[in-house]
Amino acid sequence: MPIQTGNEEPLQTLINYLADDMKECNHIIMDRMQSSVPLVSQLAAHLIVAGGKRLRPLLSLASARLCGVKDNGHDHQIPRHVRLGACIEFLHTATLLHDDVVDESKLRRGAESANAVFGNSASVLVGDFLFSRAFQIMTEDGSLDVMRIISKASATIAEGEILQMTVQNDLSTSISRYFEVIHGKTAALFAASCRVGAIIANNSKESERALESYGTNLGMAFQLVDDALDYSATQEELGKTIGDDFREGKVTYPVLIAYKKSDADEKKFWKRVIEDGNQKEEDLENALKIIRKYDVIKDTLKEATIFANKATEALNIFPESELHTILKNIANYTVNRHF
Amino acid sequence: MPIQTGNEEPLQTLINYLADDMKECNHIIMDRMQSSVPLVSQLAAHLIVAGGKRLRPLLSLASARLCGVKDNGHDHQIPRHVRLGACIEFLHTATLLHDDVVDESKLRRGAESANAVFGNSASVLVGDFLFSRAFQIMTEDGSLDVMRIISKASATIAEGEILQMTVQNDLSTSISRYFEVIHGKTAALFAASCRVGAIIANNSKESERALESYGTNLGMAFQLVDDALDYSATQEELGKTIGDDFREGKVTYPVLIAYKKSDADEKKFWKRVIEDGNQKEEDLENALKIIRKYDVIKDTLKEATIFANKATEALNIFPESELHTILKNIANYTVNRHF
Repeated sequence: MPIQTGNEEPLQTLINYLADDMKECNHIIMDRMQSSVPLVSQLAAHLIVAGGKRLRPLLSLASARLCGVKDNGHDHQIPRHVRLGACIEFLHTATLLHDDVVDESKLRRGAESANAVFGNSASVLVGDFLFSRAFQIMTEDGSLDVMRIISKASATIAEGEILQMTVQNDLSTSISRYFEVIHGKTAALFAASCRVGAIIANNSKESERALESYGTNLGMAFQLVDDALDYSATQEELGKTIGDDFREGKVTYPVLIAYKKSDADEKKFWKRVIEDGNQKEEDLENALKIIRKYDVIKDTLKEATIFANKATEALNIFPESELHTILKNIANYTVNRHF
Repeated sequence: MPIQTGNEEPLQTLINYLADDMKECNHIIMDRMQSSVPLVSQLAAHLIVAGGKRLRPLLSLASARLCGVKDNGHDHQIPRHVRLGACIEFLHTATLLHDDVVDESKLRRGAESANAVFGNSASVLVGDFLFSRAFQIMTEDGSLDVMRIISKASATIAEGEILQMTVQNDLSTSISRYFEVIHGKTAALFAASCRVGAIIANNSKESERALESYGTNLGMAFQLVDDALDYSATQEELGKTIGDDFREGKVTYPVLIAYKKSDADEKKFWKRVIEDGNQKEEDLENALKIIRKYDVIKDTLKEATIFANKATEALNIFPESELHTILKNIANYTVNRHF
């Protein structure tokens, strides 16, 4: 059962709402990814210019606006929230470059991945460059609170990725361990992106906590859906190879639930393909058949919905506003998304 | 002509002089490389505990002491210079982990490299973790000046490594381009390590500049000697595979000078082995023969000596002291080192 066609409007509405901020943010992104070494800018451009919805900087900008951040007026300074949006996009891009090396991915955002075009070495090093640049931008901004949150998130992302590697191929991985993995690899940066928005707007600790909770839960929902899509979308919808997680032996939510519900013969199948990594061409089709048989995608989306609901609830402390509604809709939309 | 046996005492003298600081620094290193994900600490320990002379933190500590940094007395706080020494070691270790992935190295510090033992993916991600941890430590310290210098150095290191990759196999690389590469990959972090020592000690801009110059020139000398050793040391002396640079087609100073001095037949040889990467087993021996014929190692060490002399001169603004003498001796010793 493929996930139903989602309503893409909430994200587009957010993009429209923040069009001015994002225009400035994109300008900084293009400006600060330049380097005296041409390959750096070329490789960074491959991933950054080519696409991506800039979801994390959008969250950061939206959080800052929700907390009442003001423009600088006419002092020609780059607004702080806009600059930090660029910083977050650099950090995210750095992790994508390294992830694609780790996962040996060939596709990213519907195009050849940077490692496939420029090689692993260049991807590792340009990732390091963008990582450093992100910290340079934070230093220019000068908020120790922001740096503390982002550097911690950055360590958590690496730990999450390593934990994922540690449990790879292990069908005895618990659901709570899986949640720990996706919290690290995805939700931590969503949470940090939202939280620094509140900090920059000089808003209350309560707002910080609420937006951190929104980001965390949105990130969890987002990753659960991502893991569902790997077993339910078409390649065209996903913009990357279908069944990547399956081939890598990743123990995502759909696999763990399917394994749990499987009968003895099916369990043998999962052990062979995931634990022993012994896969034949028809195995993905068989995995999909089992996943459909036990309605596992529905279970996964149900779990994602719980997180999405927590995300929207976290926003209840903020007064009603257009942006408030858009952010709530984004959380609901995440569960129905097709990307 | 192998490099003559050096007098190892100056570095050992520095290690002894800073024994108390280094003991505390090592304690922080061990403490802060811990993670809830066991593989992180295991891999980090492989490289960090196993060895290394901690040259960069030593330089940072020495610079802080030279600039008169004081102990905290009995307030049980970790002294700032000690904490930043740990930060610099983490940053350096992160770059080593990534370099070994990029270079596909099998040996590091006389033992199997982390990527050889744990795989490339774990090395990339633990590098990212240590990188993040370094920035967490800087945030705790709270100096924006330190963060600005270290994050810039970190971007410069990545650019230097990428530039090196860009000029790989290219015998038309100019010497000034080579210097740009080694400034990025090595001298920038030496310079930053020394400079932040002065900042932490709250010393003058003049001291900052002097120590930055000392670090830069020491780093340049250090890397030139490193590049000479790859064509002159024994594997036992070097602690890594001999001829690595040659096999990778790196255009280091010895190769560029040897190529310049070579006759037509020898130039053909270099083009085949370095530019075309077409190497046979006996080619390293032949390369060494040409390098010996034209006394290229002597040229390289002469160039290194010029930088080492600039390093010692930079220290002239500081009054005579035991540490002052040790740091000058280290610069001279670098040219004669065997590591």
